[in-house]
Amino acid sequence: MSPPTALLDDLAAAGDVVVDADVLEAYRRDQAAPGLLPAGVPAALVRPTSTGQVQAAVRAAARHGVPVVPRGAGSGLSGGANAIDGCVVVSLERMTEIVELDAEGLTATVQPGVVNAVLGDAARAAGLFYAPDPASREFSTIGGNIATNAGGLCCVKYGVTRDALLTCEVVLADGRTVRVGHRTRKGVAGYDLAGLVCGSEGTLGIVTEATLRLLPAPPPSSTLAATFPSVEAAGDAVVAIVRRARPSMLELLDRTTLAAVQALEPLGYEEDVEAVLFARSDAGHEAGAREIALIQELCDAAGATLSVVTDDPDEGRMVTVARQLAYPALERRGATLLDDVAVPVPRIPRLLTGVQEIAREHGVLIGTFGHAGDGNMHPTVVYDQRDTDQVRRARAAFDAIVALALELGGTVSGEHGIGLLKVDHLDAELGDARALGRAIKDAWDPAGTMNPGKAI
Amino acid sequence: MSPPTALLDDLAAAGDVVVDADVLEAYRRDQAAPGLLPAGVPAALVRPTSTGQVQAAVRAAARHGVPVVPRGAGSGLSGGANAIDGCVVVSLERMTEIVELDAEGLTATVQPGVVNAVLGDAARAAGLFYAPDPASREFSTIGGNIATNAGGLCCVKYGVTRDALLTCEVVLADGRTVRVGHRTRKGVAGYDLAGLVCGSEGTLGIVTEATLRLLPAPPPSSTLAATFPSVEAAGDAVVAIVRRARPSMLELLDRTTLAAVQALEPLGYEEDVEAVLFARSDAGHEAGAREIALIQELCDAAGATLSVVTDDPDEGRMVTVARQLAYPALERRGATLLDDVAVPVPRIPRLLTGVQEIAREHGVLIGTFGHAGDGNMHPTVVYDQRDTDQVRRARAAFDAIVALALELGGTVSGEHGIGLLKVDHLDAELGDARALGRAIKDAWDPAGTMNPGKAI
Repeated sequence: MSPPTALLDDLAAAGDVVVDADVLEAYRRDQAAPGLLPAGVPAALVRPTSTGQVQAAVRAAARHGVPVVPRGAGSGLSGGANAIDGCVVVSLERMTEIVELDAEGLTATVQPGVVNAVLGDAARAAGLFYAPDPASREFSTIGGNIATNAGGLCCVKYGVTRDALLTCEVVLADGRTVRVGHRTRKGVAGYDLAGLVCGSEGTLGIVTEATLRLLPAPPPSSTLAATFPSVEAAGDAVVAIVRRARPSMLELLDRTTLAAVQALEPLGYEEDVEAVLFARSDAGHEAGAREIALIQELCDAAGATLSVVTDDPDEGRMVTVARQLAYPALERRGATLLDDVAVPVPRIPRLLTGVQEIAREHGVLIGTFGHAGDGNMHPTVVYDQRDTDQVRRARAAFDAIVALALELGGTVSGEHGIGLLKVDHLDAELGDARALGRAIKDAWDPAGTMNPGKAI
Repeated sequence: MSPPTALLDDLAAAGDVVVDADVLEAYRRDQAAPGLLPAGVPAALVRPTSTGQVQAAVRAAARHGVPVVPRGAGSGLSGGANAIDGCVVVSLERMTEIVELDAEGLTATVQPGVVNAVLGDAARAAGLFYAPDPASREFSTIGGNIATNAGGLCCVKYGVTRDALLTCEVVLADGRTVRVGHRTRKGVAGYDLAGLVCGSEGTLGIVTEATLRLLPAPPPSSTLAATFPSVEAAGDAVVAIVRRARPSMLELLDRTTLAAVQALEPLGYEEDVEAVLFARSDAGHEAGAREIALIQELCDAAGATLSVVTDDPDEGRMVTVARQLAYPALERRGATLLDDVAVPVPRIPRLLTGVQEIAREHGVLIGTFGHAGDGNMHPTVVYDQRDTDQVRRARAAFDAIVALALELGGTVSGEHGIGLLKVDHLDAELGDARALGRAIKDAWDPAGTMNPGKAI
């Protein structure tokens, strides 16, 4: 299909227009479930450098009635950035300016293509802290983080991207720009449109600038690692910890994940470990040591077989290395279907044992790790992409995990987003509320050109 | 005007229907700006005890095309609960059940009529903490807190009502119920409809049940009080404090407010004090003492004339008594127009000096106090209600303060809501975003019966 010349002519106002098939190929999909989700062929790619160019791209697409698919780093895990046949891909990768870092007002104003870690480094250089820390922070962009309302490890204490977003500029479906939200930390004038845009996966508009909240840099952290003879014991520890302490990280690895990690890098964990917990306190100094000691006490009381704590940040990184290796280790085993369910914290053990049953039932390997402190787990189905039966079983296991999370009062996605991967599960979770979301989409984007078919 | 019999008949399914004029009189307005805002005469009042009865009331109103005005404790400060001629007032005061307090899952599920402090006490009894603490907490309801996205003193550290709201049941304009939000602390399935409903002042529906997030109870707090020779010095201290510390309270009183307080209760503050700061740390034990010592150091460095700290909670209450008395003391001076602007923290001194100029210009008394840590200030215009010229000047001063806050990059309302009081200021703040909010309202409530004319 060769793209209509009139569209390309109109797109010229958005900067260089790319139609080279090889380049377009690299912009067709994000990192979600390779081979399982549709990815269309774009009519064109644009990489605007200004809000005006984004507006031009959106206006051109609107004029020709073609879909717009916005894209950050393409590191999303739900297909939210997958292309649609004939669409215009608007990549924000060239809008990388930190417009302002206001160290007195504790805000950073950035273009959407700024990488999360770059903002984090800039904040740190000013003695400050940008809290949201998705695992993708070294390469994912703030625009993508906002589109998916990205989480991370320290959101157990500091909240998710939505909690950090104060105000943003949005290019709407008709090419107009609006500013939503408030520069102030509190503000109740009008509906919470910034919160609405955050997590909407580009279906309501394209964020072209955002002002984010920074925090004082926390003091050096204390760290704990503890092993458990059962997922129930680990679950009991998590419940006790979040009830008594405010850890800045509280992560869990199950037995399958640990085995994959040790195959990659022998770390000396005993064979009979069913779950490992990692916790961090950034309460600082005596308070951090005291908090991590309390967490250790609670782990021991819940039946931990071994627990170690350290106030040394380097040692802290060493004792938690298994958490860093969790996903890479599982990826070594085959193609992965990374799930992202969340359940109320007390139901984590039932989720973990349920996932183990699902793995047995479907004859697939599933390692589970994730953010225990807020019940957000990543059961990861490992399969052989070339074996169609395994692909089918992997997908069935994935769906069974999602259904289990809902049964436990949870959600189909804690932080990765719906994209294309989980649209089919939305009715089960949202019920009538889904139509309320659609009504908003229809009101803001009547022609339905903004990233259609995703998120809602 | 006698209400149509057909409406009253239909309302019977919502419980007792009150049409007694004396009773209705007590339900015509909230606590906003006495005498300055319109308050209509309702056709009827209902006080449902169940979601089903709320649905019946909303359906009856929809059938007869009359407005619905939801009402919590009637303690709002912006006229959001003021009646409209011929409306049905739906008071949630009888829905006062704490449905569940899940001490392991750290959630409370409550009916909307539960008083904030009652929930706070129930949480405390379980060793937990419900953070949002509006000044009205002893009488305002959770339903009203959600409708206005209420703030309070400790939201400088713990966030506002929206940050505590996980999921809620909402009766929509057509009488259907939907559940929005997620029971889990993280959840990105669908748009953030719970965040949207929170702060919508009953214009999108009526919250009939809410699940709120609880936190571990913080340890005993340390407290500081410090006096300053200028608002600039106090402002410098606030900027320095929020950049280095995470106080659980950071409040400011200006000279005029302090004079009113001392007229009510002589507390021994010197004549030349231009501003007082009160700070609290609940980091606990050594960490709290260390944090409050740091805050004292920063106050002294900014030029505090006097500063005292204490680790004793009772003493902490004593040294901050002027903050408790601020509004009551100003109320003794006359009728009050309590403003609620917020500005970026570094601009607090410019707000305070600007307010002093506005007071001089308009020949009115304005005392300012409020939540310095998040820039949310309550300049309070004091006037004689019987003097029409003073009323006019008070209103003009109030409008000038709102304009000043916008000029400083702030918002017309930090936490009290828009109601009727500030709808005329919305265009200036929101611009094109106002129409986006209206589009949502129109999509959810096409007939426009839910609390029309308020909030947006």
